[in-house]
Amino acid sequence: MAVNRRIVLARRPVGRPRPEDFRLEEVPVPRPGPGEVLVRNLWLSLDPYMRGRMGEGRSYARPVELGEVMVGGTVGQVVEANAPGITAGSFVVGRGGWQEWSVLPAGELRTVDPQAAPLSTALGVLGMPGLTAHVGLRDIARPKPGETLVVAAATGPVGGTVGQLARLAGARVVGIAGGPEKCRLAVERLGFPICLDHRAPDLPGRLRAACPDGIDVYWENVGGGVLEAVLPLLNDFARVPVCGLVAWYNATEPPPGPDRLPALLRLVLTRRLLVQGFIVSDRPEGDFRAEVGALVRDGRLAWLEDVREGLEAAPTALAGLLEGENRGKLLIRLAPLPTA
Amino acid sequence: MAVNRRIVLARRPVGRPRPEDFRLEEVPVPRPGPGEVLVRNLWLSLDPYMRGRMGEGRSYARPVELGEVMVGGTVGQVVEANAPGITAGSFVVGRGGWQEWSVLPAGELRTVDPQAAPLSTALGVLGMPGLTAHVGLRDIARPKPGETLVVAAATGPVGGTVGQLARLAGARVVGIAGGPEKCRLAVERLGFPICLDHRAPDLPGRLRAACPDGIDVYWENVGGGVLEAVLPLLNDFARVPVCGLVAWYNATEPPPGPDRLPALLRLVLTRRLLVQGFIVSDRPEGDFRAEVGALVRDGRLAWLEDVREGLEAAPTALAGLLEGENRGKLLIRLAPLPTA
Repeated sequence: MAVNRRIVLARRPVGRPRPEDFRLEEVPVPRPGPGEVLVRNLWLSLDPYMRGRMGEGRSYARPVELGEVMVGGTVGQVVEANAPGITAGSFVVGRGGWQEWSVLPAGELRTVDPQAAPLSTALGVLGMPGLTAHVGLRDIARPKPGETLVVAAATGPVGGTVGQLARLAGARVVGIAGGPEKCRLAVERLGFPICLDHRAPDLPGRLRAACPDGIDVYWENVGGGVLEAVLPLLNDFARVPVCGLVAWYNATEPPPGPDRLPALLRLVLTRRLLVQGFIVSDRPEGDFRAEVGALVRDGRLAWLEDVREGLEAAPTALAGLLEGENRGKLLIRLAPLPTA
Repeated sequence: MAVNRRIVLARRPVGRPRPEDFRLEEVPVPRPGPGEVLVRNLWLSLDPYMRGRMGEGRSYARPVELGEVMVGGTVGQVVEANAPGITAGSFVVGRGGWQEWSVLPAGELRTVDPQAAPLSTALGVLGMPGLTAHVGLRDIARPKPGETLVVAAATGPVGGTVGQLARLAGARVVGIAGGPEKCRLAVERLGFPICLDHRAPDLPGRLRAACPDGIDVYWENVGGGVLEAVLPLLNDFARVPVCGLVAWYNATEPPPGPDRLPALLRLVLTRRLLVQGFIVSDRPEGDFRAEVGALVRDGRLAWLEDVREGLEAAPTALAGLLEGENRGKLLIRLAPLPTA
């Protein structure tokens, strides 16, 4: 009988996730019930939101239970379809989790064409992260030509797409990333006109110099010291889509004072800021697939991937992601792409 | 020669404004130049924003200079008009400042009909505070029938109007005010179904009990402990128009830690909150005058006024306003209404 290797949550992490917080299990490959599909997973997406699901606090989605398979987006190939309209051999994207095989309801899968774009992009620029960039720009950030947009995690799949889409919309884009290598990648591979290293000294001064007209959109991916450098530069009517706060995800207690909450709200008032949290799944896709799909097809939108091999690489890779160790979209290759 | 009594800013206050921060001066009544109008001021409006103008920090408007007349909205009667389309004897609302006589550009005045509503309402429910309530509800708060809206400073001209307009829109409204008398006024005179005293013990527990379905709109007038009680109760997709933060206006330094800024932003993200600062003058009036004017005419919208007599009462009255000592819209009667 075929074996499914899977990783479950063994313990709720305190601070940075450790290997002991996860457990690799071998179980029989499950069989699809009516309306379900058995998928051989090829790619697993690792994303910062997963840290939130490992805690038991209230978030926008229920936590992963102890002993439950870790959640995650996957691309795979249908092996057995017990549902109409979907055939064995086709490729699908869904929420298969941290495992090599998944049984999923057919209605929760989307088929992808491996000829149109590499399959892994269904988890990146053409998947959840790309859609996040698209809807946040469309609904909240709304950059206008000539405005200045600052985005951190500039080599990540959200930040990188935000920067490129905003440039195409005519905005002045300033990227921020951790370390000189990522900054170089953002400029050379993703076309950022400038990318600042938030680990080098005097980010506030360098950011001020890079934004002579202030900041009209700050795309919040990270929180932490980047936010601190951004706040004094925000223009009247600036928009701050709050998409992620990865710098704080491992925090175990509130940082020491002074309490900056009152100062933040005074800034919101006096500069008439719009600060809005959003989650991609709350919002309609609109013309995302048509628009971003065409940009990918025409080579006008680039992306970076950081691929790790094998399911067992996932725990360490996720811990590293939360500390910015990845270079682009972090993916686990669960199995080689089958040859036709 | 007639004398104009006026109050200028003598010193930038530290903390609560004191009498020595102001200076009463007697100067000749000014004469209107071309396009200008001489107005005998009857009512002076006192509003929390004035505290911001007394400091020298960047805000949404330039500070009052030392020696300059304090800014403020006024209603008065035209004595001499040196401009077409405006006649002596008519009543006007404008930004006459803390003085008994003002010369103002005719283009910055709006005439008001003393028969339609009491003149003082042009500084309250039918003036800047009423318009603030209208545009903030229309553009940011957007309360839906059955949603729960919480507003502090419930007896003030903004909070009182917000609560009543939201009720008319079908929302469940919970007021908050300082002290049992104000809470009684909010319920008996302004029709709030419930009003909680933020000075009594356990505001968080009482607010939770008053909002069994959570909070969908928190109209932020005050900051401080009220905000603290509200935050845990905010529902997904709640809106927080940031209209004022009066509890912090006299603050001289940031409060001690822990730093709650990261926790606020995490809440913004996980509950997908909309937090937006706004200033009434940035936004179009729309149908404010027609809509709220009709409600006032029909007796469907109530208001409270707290009238102090004479220009010299203004400094102490403003200091009290910042500590919540007023009961409704705070007004200085500069002169009795002239009899026809």
